[in-house]
Amino acid sequence: MRKIEHIGIAVKNLEVSNLLFEKLFGAPAYKQEEVASEGVKTSFFMNGPNKIELLEATSPESPIAKFLEKKGEGIHHIAFDVEDILSEIQRLKLEGFTILNETPKKGADNKLVAFLHPKGTNGVLIELCQEIK
Amino acid sequence: MRKIEHIGIAVKNLEVSNLLFEKLFGAPAYKQEEVASEGVKTSFFMNGPNKIELLEATSPESPIAKFLEKKGEGIHHIAFDVEDILSEIQRLKLEGFTILNETPKKGADNKLVAFLHPKGTNGVLIELCQEIK
Repeated sequence: MRKIEHIGIAVKNLEVSNLLFEKLFGAPAYKQEEVASEGVKTSFFMNGPNKIELLEATSPESPIAKFLEKKGEGIHHIAFDVEDILSEIQRLKLEGFTILNETPKKGADNKLVAFLHPKGTNGVLIELCQEIK
Repeated sequence: MRKIEHIGIAVKNLEVSNLLFEKLFGAPAYKQEEVASEGVKTSFFMNGPNKIELLEATSPESPIAKFLEKKGEGIHHIAFDVEDILSEIQRLKLEGFTILNETPKKGADNKLVAFLHPKGTNGVLIELCQEIK
């Protein structure tokens, strides 16, 4: 794990929140992207070496829709940048962490991603992400 | 705002969570520190340009005790590194954000800190922090 790649924040309305985070950072989102397989629309803001990802649900079955219903708007996950996601998954399994998807899947922003079960990480949903070259 | 300085995670037991995050990062906390004025014990882990701060409450009146009671363990705040906290507070006030303490206070890890009200930031508690030189 080399750095915080991004923080994912669940929002009800991406357009409204885009304006809010543009004011916060003094610069607009550099990218918007829909990830149909996850039922989300996303936008990304740069902040030095890190990013902020805003997520709006596009269907009631989306994990983000369920999160919003249960907890309301707020931080949804932390994503760490990894060089080799498969070896990192193996390392973390050996350390006793539960991996939600041992086969990495295609996420937003040109990444392969895997998630750790938050029950094993103090309630924090952790994403591993590796840039697709 | 130059980068994510750290992510603050509320935990019930700092010793137990220190071991967990040591496994996650493959390296132990580089610092432990009590902030009596906030009613917390903290530990810090390095992750490239970023840090993870674990927070355990030391009194029932601590904001962390209240957070744990209401929401359970999990991400408590995001802290952004700023060069000049007073000018950043002024800029964000003009943009319409509510600052919880307009006079920065001394936080953990040798920082001056101020918080934005999460009602104005999609439920995310945002900390501004400036290194004390």
